[in-house]
Parts: sequence; C-alpha cells; structure tokens
Amino acid sequence: MENKIKCAVLGATGMVGQVFLSMLANHPWFELTRVIASDKRGGQNVAASTAWLLPQPMPTEVAALNFNKYAVDQLKESGVQIIFSALPADIAREAEAELRDAGFWVFSNAGAFRHEENVPILIPEVNPEALRLIETQGFPQRGFIVTNSNCTTAGLAVALAPLRQFSIQKLFVSTYQAISGAGYPGLSALDIMGNAIPFINGEEEKIIRECRKILGIEADIFPACVRIPVKFGHLESVWIEFEHDVSNEDILNAWAKFGNDQPPLPTAPQRPVLYQTEEKFPQPKQAFEGRPPGMQVFTGRLRKQHKLTGFFLLANNIVRGAAGGSIINAEVFIQNYQRQES
Amino acid sequence: MENKIKCAVLGATGMVGQVFLSMLANHPWFELTRVIASDKRGGQNVAASTAWLLPQPMPTEVAALNFNKYAVDQLKESGVQIIFSALPADIAREAEAELRDAGFWVFSNAGAFRHEENVPILIPEVNPEALRLIETQGFPQRGFIVTNSNCTTAGLAVALAPLRQFSIQKLFVSTYQAISGAGYPGLSALDIMGNAIPFINGEEEKIIRECRKILGIEADIFPACVRIPVKFGHLESVWIEFEHDVSNEDILNAWAKFGNDQPPLPTAPQRPVLYQTEEKFPQPKQAFEGRPPGMQVFTGRLRKQHKLTGFFLLANNIVRGAAGGSIINAEVFIQNYQRQES
Amino acid sequence: MENKIKCAVLGATGMVGQVFLSMLANHPWFELTRVIASDKRGGQNVAASTAWLLPQPMPTEVAALNFNKYAVDQLKESGVQIIFSALPADIAREAEAELRDAGFWVFSNAGAFRHEENVPILIPEVNPEALRLIETQGFPQRGFIVTNSNCTTAGLAVALAPLRQFSIQKLFVSTYQAISGAGYPGLSALDIMGNAIPFINGEEEKIIRECRKILGIEADIFPACVRIPVKFGHLESVWIEFEHDVSNEDILNAWAKFGNDQPPLPTAPQRPVLYQTEEKFPQPKQAFEGRPPGMQVFTGRLRKQHKLTGFFLLANNIVRGAAGGSIINAEVFIQNYQRQES
Amino acid sequence: MENKIKCAVLGATGMVGQVFLSMLANHPWFELTRVIASDKRGGQNVAASTAWLLPQPMPTEVAALNFNKYAVDQLKESGVQIIFSALPADIAREAEAELRDAGFWVFSNAGAFRHEENVPILIPEVNPEALRLIETQGFPQRGFIVTNSNCTTAGLAVALAPLRQFSIQKLFVSTYQAISGAGYPGLSALDIMGNAIPFINGEEEKIIRECRKILGIEADIFPACVRIPVKFGHLESVWIEFEHDVSNEDILNAWAKFGNDQPPLPTAPQRPVLYQTEEKFPQPKQAFEGRPPGMQVFTGRLRKQHKLTGFFLLANNIVRGAAGGSIINAEVFIQNYQRQES
Repeated sequence: MENKIKCAVLGATGMVGQVFLSMLANHPWFELTRVIASDKRGGQNVAASTAWLLPQPMPTEVAALNFNKYAVDQLKESGVQIIFSALPADIAREAEAELRDAGFWVFSNAGAFRHEENVPILIPEVNPEALRLIETQGFPQRGFIVTNSNCTTAGLAVALAPLRQFSIQKLFVSTYQAISGAGYPGLSALDIMGNAIPFINGEEEKIIRECRKILGIEADIFPACVRIPVKFGHLESVWIEFEHDVSNEDILNAWAKFGNDQPPLPTAPQRPVLYQTEEKFPQPKQAFEGRPPGMQVFTGRLRKQHKLTGFFLLANNIVRGAAGGSIINAEVFIQNYQRQES
Repeated sequence: MENKIKCAVLGATGMVGQVFLSMLANHPWFELTRVIASDKRGGQNVAASTAWLLPQPMPTEVAALNFNKYAVDQLKESGVQIIFSALPADIAREAEAELRDAGFWVFSNAGAFRHEENVPILIPEVNPEALRLIETQGFPQRGFIVTNSNCTTAGLAVALAPLRQFSIQKLFVSTYQAISGAGYPGLSALDIMGNAIPFINGEEEKIIRECRKILGIEADIFPACVRIPVKFGHLESVWIEFEHDVSNEDILNAWAKFGNDQPPLPTAPQRPVLYQTEEKFPQPKQAFEGRPPGMQVFTGRLRKQHKLTGFFLLANNIVRGAAGGSIINAEVFIQNYQRQES
Repeated sequence: MENKIKCAVLGATGMVGQVFLSMLANHPWFELTRVIASDKRGGQNVAASTAWLLPQPMPTEVAALNFNKYAVDQLKESGVQIIFSALPADIAREAEAELRDAGFWVFSNAGAFRHEENVPILIPEVNPEALRLIETQGFPQRGFIVTNSNCTTAGLAVALAPLRQFSIQKLFVSTYQAISGAGYPGLSALDIMGNAIPFINGEEEKIIRECRKILGIEADIFPACVRIPVKFGHLESVWIEFEHDVSNEDILNAWAKFGNDQPPLPTAPQRPVLYQTEEKFPQPKQAFEGRPPGMQVFTGRLRKQHKLTGFFLLANNIVRGAAGGSIINAEVFIQNYQRQES
Repeated sequence: MENKIKCAVLGATGMVGQVFLSMLANHPWFELTRVIASDKRGGQNVAASTAWLLPQPMPTEVAALNFNKYAVDQLKESGVQIIFSALPADIAREAEAELRDAGFWVFSNAGAFRHEENVPILIPEVNPEALRLIETQGFPQRGFIVTNSNCTTAGLAVALAPLRQFSIQKLFVSTYQAISGAGYPGLSALDIMGNAIPFINGEEEKIIRECRKILGIEADIFPACVRIPVKFGHLESVWIEFEHDVSNEDILNAWAKFGNDQPPLPTAPQRPVLYQTEEKFPQPKQAFEGRPPGMQVFTGRLRKQHKLTGFFLLANNIVRGAAGGSIINAEVFIQNYQRQES
C-alpha cells in the first residue's frame, strides 16, 4: 500500500493502548499519527512517561512519539481517518459517538456500543457479514463504529465458529483468565499472587451475550470466570453438547479447514485455530506464540464423554481479545471497502 | 479417651505424610507411635532430615521423633493398631495388603485399593454406610483397608452429597488445582510459575469413577482438570443439571442442614459445607480456614442458568482431600466399632 | 492481670491494622475496645466490610466488632487508655498529636513522629532506655507517643543489637522485601509478579536514620532496598565491618545470649534472635514461625570473608516490623510504669 | 560471510542448550549442523521431543532438526568445526577434553575447565587479551577450549570492567537470581513460589574466583547469593569502595564510553552497559530487552554514600550469562584468527 492510512490511538497509556501502539508501529497499511492520552500527558514523550507493560520492548518508532490531547478538530487536521479506541467504556460512550459523527472510522475495544443494533461486534473469521452494519450507520457518507468482542469471548468465538455447523445446543465454559485483562494497575498482588478469584464483574454476562451476537447461535451458555496468577493469555475449559453426535475427527477437520478460504490480511493468522496434540497444552505461556503473535487461537485435549465434546483453548487476551481484534477489523474493512475501489 | 490408640504413619516424609504428622501430633484419640519412611532415613530425626512443606510450623511433638524403617513385626511389637498410609500407589499395593493381612486397621490415602469391591472410599459425611465393607474384608477377625478419595473428588463429593436428593443428571466440573496435589518436589517452578497446565494424569478419570462409587450416582460427569500456580487448595467450578428445577434456596438449605445430625468427631467440621455470600469467594487462600482447619468445604457464587445450577467450591487438597480424610475415617471407625464396646 | 487495659486501634482496615486486631484479639493485658476506621466505615461490622489480608483467619472476637468513627471524646468516654496507631504518616501527624494532648498513651507504627527528639523509636530488646523519653513528653501528667521502627529496620536492629559490643564500623544491607510492606492494595500484580523492583521510596534513608537512632551507633550504613514477589517476611543480606576481627563463634554466642535477662512480656520471644544452621535458611516462608509467631528474628549463613562478617536475617515485616512492634512497646511500658505501682 | 562455519551444540535439551539453538538458528556466521543430546534422544525430532522453556517460540529452523548422539568421528565427518557446550560440569570434563584433542574449537558454558591456567574465561568486552591463551593450548595446530563465566559473574564483570580504572578495593554484591539459572527442572515450585532462598551452592565462591580471573583485580569481594521467584534475569545490588573518591559522573562516563572502540560482532551490543535513569529500574522483566536481546547489561540507581558507590545491575543469566557468552566468544575468535586470514 503506497499511501498508508493515518490512524490515532485513544487511551494509549493503558495495557490495551500499549498493544495498539506495539502492533501499529510497523503496520504495512496504517500509519500511527496520533497517540491520544489524558490531558495531563499531552505533549509528553511516550517513552519517558509510560510504564511499559508488555513482554516485548517498546518499539523505537513508538518511543519517539509524543502524547496528544484529545481534540476532534486536531485529529481532522492531522489527516487521521481511523481511530483505534482503548478507552474505558464510560468515556468511550461519549467520545466514540462524537468521533463517528465527525466522520471517523472508529474501531473500538470498548464495550460501550457493542450491543447497539447497528454496531457490529466483528471477528473477521467468524462473522464477516456483520461488517455491513456500518452502512446502516451511514457509511460511506458518515463515520461508523466497529467493536471487537470482550477478551474472553474472542478466543471462544474463533474456536466455536467452525463448529456451528454441528449445531451447538449447550456450551459450558470455565475460564482461567490472565490479570492483564483487568488493565493496569488492575489487581493487587496481595489478592492474586498464589491465589485464584472466582468472580470477574460482568464477564459471564458478556460471554453469553456476545457469543450469541457474534456466532448467531441460540445455545444455552453456562460460563464461570476465574482470575488466576498469570500475566497474559486466557485459558478456557469447554464442554459442548451438539445436536447430534460429533466425532473428534470432525472437530479436528473443522478447525483445520477454518480460515483457509479467507483473503490474507496483515494481522490474520493463516490458521486461526491451531490444535495441539501434546496433552499438556495449550498453556498461557504460549500467549505470544503463533503467527502473527497473539492472534492464533490454540486448542487442545479434545475428548468425548457421553456424546459431549470437551477441549481447552488459549487466546491472547490483549491481542486477539483486544487491540489485535480491532486492528484486524480495520484491515478487513479496508480490504472490503477501500482496496476494491483502487 | 483414656488410652489413646497407637498409630503409625507410612510414607511420612512426603507432603501428605507431613499433614498426617501435623494432624496426629495432638490428636485426642490417637497416639503417633511410629513414623515410617524409606530405609535410608531409618533412625534419623524427623526435624533434622525433613524439608518441611506446610504453612504451619512442624509441631514440636513431631520434631522430636525419629523415622523408623518399615518392618511389620516391629509395628506389631510397638502396639500400633492403626496405620495411616501416605504411600505411593505402587508401593501401597503390596505394603497395605501385607499390613491388612497382619491384622492392622489401614486407613490409606493411596489409590491402590480404592476400586476393590470390598474396600470403601469413605467420607463419613457422605457414605458412612460404606464403612461396613470392612466386615466383608474379615473384620473384626482380620485387618482391613479403608481409603479416602482422590483430592479433587473429596471436596466435590462433600458439596454434592446433600444435593443427591434432587437427582443429579449431569455434572460439569472444571478444576483449579494447587501444586501441592502433585507432591514434592512435584512441578518445576519453570513450568508452573505464571502459567497453567490443563492436564493432570489420571485425574479426570478418578473424578468420574470415585464420584460414582462414593455418591452412588449414575450421573454423566464431564471433568476438566487444570494445575494453577497456587500452593494449597483446590478450587472447582461446577454446573449441575438436576432431574427437575431446583431453586437456589433449596440448594442453600440442603448445604446448611448437611451434617447437623452427625455425632461429633475430633476432625469433623460442625458444618461440612459452608456457603459464602461474598461474590469473590471461595478462594484458595482460605485453604487452611474453617474448623478444623482444612476440613470444611467452602462453596460460593451459587447461580442458575436455563434450569441448571452453578457454583464454585474450595477444598483443602492435602487435608480434606488427603490426610485429614483418612484421619476422620479412622475416627468414624472408632466411633462405630470401638467406643460402643466400651 | 485482672483488669485489662482498654485500647483502640486507629487505621484498623489496612494491612497493619489487621495485624493489630489479630494480635489484640486475645491479649492477656489489653482489651480491644474500639476499632477506628474512616468515617464511611463507621458502624459497619468488621467481618462484613473488611478484605481480610492475613494468612491466619480473622479471630471471631474481631469479626463481631463494629468499626467506630474517629472521635476523641468518644474514645475518652469508652475508657480507652492505649491507642495503637496504624495511620498513614500524614494523617498520623495530626491525629496522634491530638490524642497525646488528650492524655492517651499512643503506640504508633507511623513514621510521623519518629525523629522528634523526645519521641522514642522503641524496640524493648534493643533500646529499652529510650522509653524514658515519654517523661520528657510530660508523662505521667500528660499523654505520650512511642513509635516502633520502620519494617526493614526492626529485624536488622534486633539482629545487630547484641553485636554492638564489637563496634560496628560499616554496615552493608541489601533487602528482599515482601509486598505486604507496601500496604493494601499496594503493588500491582502486573508490576511485581515474576519480577523484582530495586527501589522503595524513602526506605534506604529510613534504614540509615533509624538504625542510628535506635542502636546508638555511628557506623557508615550502605543500604539497597528491593521489592520481591513474596507476601510476608523481609529477608536481608548483611555484611559488617567491625572495629576488630570477630569470630563466628563470638557472633553466635552474642545472639544466643541476647534477651536472656529480660523480664518476660506476652509478645516477647524468649530468644529474640534464632540462628538457623541449615544453609538454605532463613526463608520468607518462615515469616509466621517462632514464638510468638512473627516476633522472632531468624539469622543464618554466618560467614567470614577478609575479616568482615556476613549473614542473612529474616523478620516478619508486619508483626515484628509493625503492629507487633507497637504491642510489645505497650507491654514494656506497662511493665515499667504500671505494674510496679500495683 | 559466504561460507558459514558449521557448529554443533552439546547438551542441547537443557535450558542453556535451548538458548544456544535459539541464537544459532539464524546466525550470520555459524550454521547449526548438529544438535547433540543424550543417547536416548538420538534421532528424535527436536520440536517433538523437547519441553521448550524460553519465552520466545522455538525457531522453525530448530524445530525441523533431529537430535544426534554424541560421537566424535561423526562430528568430524559432518564438517563441524565449532562446538558449543551446554554440558553439565562433570560430563564436560571428559567430553570437552576429548573434543579439544580431536581438534575442535570448543566454546563452553561449563565450569569444568574455567580455572585451568591456559583456558580463558572470556568476555570479549572485558578481557579480550585472554583469547590468546588458546595458543598455549596448541592452536592452531590443535583444538582448544574457551569458557564463558558463571551467569552471575558475567553481568557483574561487564559492568565493572570500565570501572577498573578507578581501582576497585572492595566489592559487595548481593544477588537476586532467576530460577532458570538452576536449569530444568531445577527448583520445585513448592520451594520457591512466594519465597526466596538465600543459598546457591558454590555460587559465591564462583563470583570471587571468576571476577578476579576475568577482571584481573585483587579486590576483596563479599558476595551473597539468593534465588527469588523470577524466571529470567539476575538482578545484583553492588557497593564498591574505590581507592579514591569517584564521582557519579565519572562512573556514568565510563559506562557510556565502554565498548565504543570495539569492532562490531553479530552478538555484541553497541553499548554493553546501558544506564537507566528511571529510579525503579533495572528490573528482571527486562531480561530479553536490549540489542541483541539479552546481551546488554542494564545498570541503574547509581548513588554515593560515605565515598562508596552503589548501583544495581541486571543481566540475562541464560544469554549474556551463558549461551550468548559462548557465542560472542566464538565470534571474537573468528574475528581475530580467521577473518584476517581471508
């Protein structure tokens, strides 16, 4: 792409914001033009004023940038077209609406608009057709908002998508969630070190609601969400009751074929679901494995019991389940609406 | 009890062995007479030659003891009647059979004999009638073996026992298991620190088999076992499909009444299942809470979804799920067969 | 003691406040009468509104209490004589002065008054004579403030006290500090899990200043303070240059004799410094060992190199280094000023 | 380099062996030809039979290789010239001598030969002249052994090298060492999780002995080595007494200039010592930062007290302190003895 599309990150200082910066630093299609943080950070250098939280070092391209204050007119003037939002839900409610009205293409990790009828919760491999909802928001005459799912739902929806063909009746999912999902500073070390906490506010409701909207299924969903002392990567234990008996071979084939027919995107894994045969896997320590790192969903320990199917999955909560989810959404939008024009 | 019954601990140097020593140090009915370890430790002082693994300090009564080698005739001569076994399954197979044949009352944490027809997997609050199987082993003319359940099953069986009245059809259980369950040295810190491992060899099979034998239910059981970086306390996420609709109130009442009618034992909690109303609980850090510490099973986050019932439970894996389980078994045996005689 | 002395705890909801509550629950001399917290907690039940942070369960006596708001006149009316303060330094500055002026005997863990000339930083085994400074504050006509040391200094001062006889010239101390020292919520799990942070604000200055005031030494002190992912117990690596050559035997004898001649106090360990011969000790996991738990200072790995003496020490930062330090101070005050009168 | 030099890794399955594989996968000068492991692994695929322990995924080039058994003649036939050894010390003693005698250039992480008079402990930035010792071993007519230092010494020696000009009199170093330094499986999670262990067998002696040999100094050294629950990266607290007063500015200048005049090597950082001004750094979580990752030594918190100089340093124990150390040694050898010839 000769001319990169200018983009801005909102809420750039938090955990998800940092993943946006990291993934956009050398993006082939997008140019990171503005890094928006709270007013008090305006003008400060990113490297100097950020507590960097990711396992990979801050890219030098990012380190050289300065934070900007939030100002719609300045964003316009700077030529920014795409907004990546890592804002908290309450702030997102107002800011993202304002930005959409101002004509920006907003790709948001916030939950504020996820359940508006004309706003998609988009996962390109799972529900690409949902992208069209932006037209009901007034695109191309007007801006739009596209959201990615909650971090726990993202990996689950990717792993389940190719299994919809078998008609999912009941879905049991118990999670083993990394503390990075709670942002920074997030959990007190005194609470979580050497411990586990079987409650994450609103998370179980999100899994139910978002799985249904994204996957378009009516299944009964039984979630149980637990925080464990792991930094990155959500592990999930899944049992599914399908309409009919489904063999493990069918499941493995469905996962293996999944995503093969999709046109390539910079942030899309060639195989969105990778089954691991080694019985001790997947494990959270793999959170940043796969290509691209953190976008692949790992499954393992497939087993049958009384006609139900059980397995584990692992997804990187801050990449596939957050910033990477929005970036791939922006890519699929460009692929569908922009590239064909040229 | 005027004259305490002399007992010995086999496999006294491991994690479970240490819990036996700790709980027997000042037991009102039992006198810890022999502490059996591998031959190379014979004669060594317990305090001097043990890497103590429990959060509570080694009792001074234990510290003063010396390890003995395994010798059936010396056990006989010492007046020992009760054997508490923390042996590995393969060694237990031979030694426990030999001890039973020699007339000892063997209470074992090992899995070696759990599925013999005439050997009970006993949890006094759950299946007290199973104790009578010792008569089919030849008691009182001969010795016997009574086992306690696997650590994961123990807490689950206690929490489910009062719910059997509602007829359990399907049981989904995902575990969050402490590393102490793997013994010492057990897991490498490089494997488990900041990670989770979704496989524990043989554990899921044990849950299915032991739950059915202990609870006497035919339910379909769907287990998923995961090791997390926690030292003590197994957390378990449970979903149950009952025959009919069961209200949360019915569940809470069943737990509240459970165990009320049982005669007191030194190691029995007054309330075997304690429901916690605070939504972030139970947590593994409570492993040694309750009275007696580690014997109470904590439940929490009771919720209904599409007629199914979900909750979390926490049980101390090395007390309720291991050594404490065998000690309470010995107590209920004494209560039923010995005390009435006097 | 027939009539227990009524006491109140200020700042009762924090980490140190909880240790005060826990240690005062069944104290033989003191009766916990008032539990003071922020206004918004006034009237709330302690058990119901506290996130309990200690490894031991909340004592039932404590669980039954309600929080009180801070009001000097109500404290007076309730018959409280002793105030134990776990206030933050800035709030302590005002409140403790007010309470002293109102005639209370204030034993404070706060740093606010530690360096006033007439306020002692008291460790009964180390500088008992400093207690007399309360007379220069106007006692017995008026109230007074007695402080305990910073958590890092406490264990160090106890271990060094019997070595002063050898004339300490230079003192090198590198710390391995538990996160509980930073209070609750304290450190973010994302910052400290699997990491170490070589900076604790003001801590190195406190070690220098407090060691000199408490020990009455002029030694050059070279501290280095590091936070590590441990919950309780500060480990410290020490190298000392004495005026002359000192043998390991002399050091061990000094530690063994230390404290032998002191009259017993409820919270005083019989041996304030316990040397451990096993080369892998002391370790933070022992934080709540010893008698009374958490008051004993453990030393180990004594070694000489080029005439300098090296060793490690471990002290419980929230007991010996905080609440327990204030309680033993109150005990030694009662022993010196009150008991002799009766 | 047109023709890459063929190399083999010995002891390829362990922690250090894996770092060798990882760093050699795309090395510009060396071609990883043979991967030697214990006989039972001979012929097995590396990816299939290795428990991968590094935070970065196994390189695909490595995954495709098969393990070879150890056989000197086969190594010869394969055209291998360089041997990288990650063998345990006792096995290294025999195997490395045999390989040297067979004409191989052995770069070893083992301690077996470190203190032979004609074997260098080489750190190219610190004691490049030591490389010449290979001539006293008979090179170029014969093979040779070059060792890298112990993991704790490596970072320390790099940070101290430019400070030798100020004449180091006394050196105090307390370490905060990662568990990966103990290899795999290494420490039991039950021992180290939430704990610290103030003893590492032989480590303090190695620091003294190796610092003196590498740095060529006579300073009195006072080490204290502690294992903490961190996976990668050794943090060290240092206090130095120089012959004369040295300003912080002089220290910073010495570090900044250090290494500037060295010819570039593939694995050499442009700035071997990087001072961090942010007061909470360096931290172990940076272990794989810097360029090349893990080869840079980070320093921070420089401070003066009574004319002594204190600071912290961080070095990656398995890269700079192990495999990376041997690889850079091989590079400097090639640069000095091979490249000039061509």
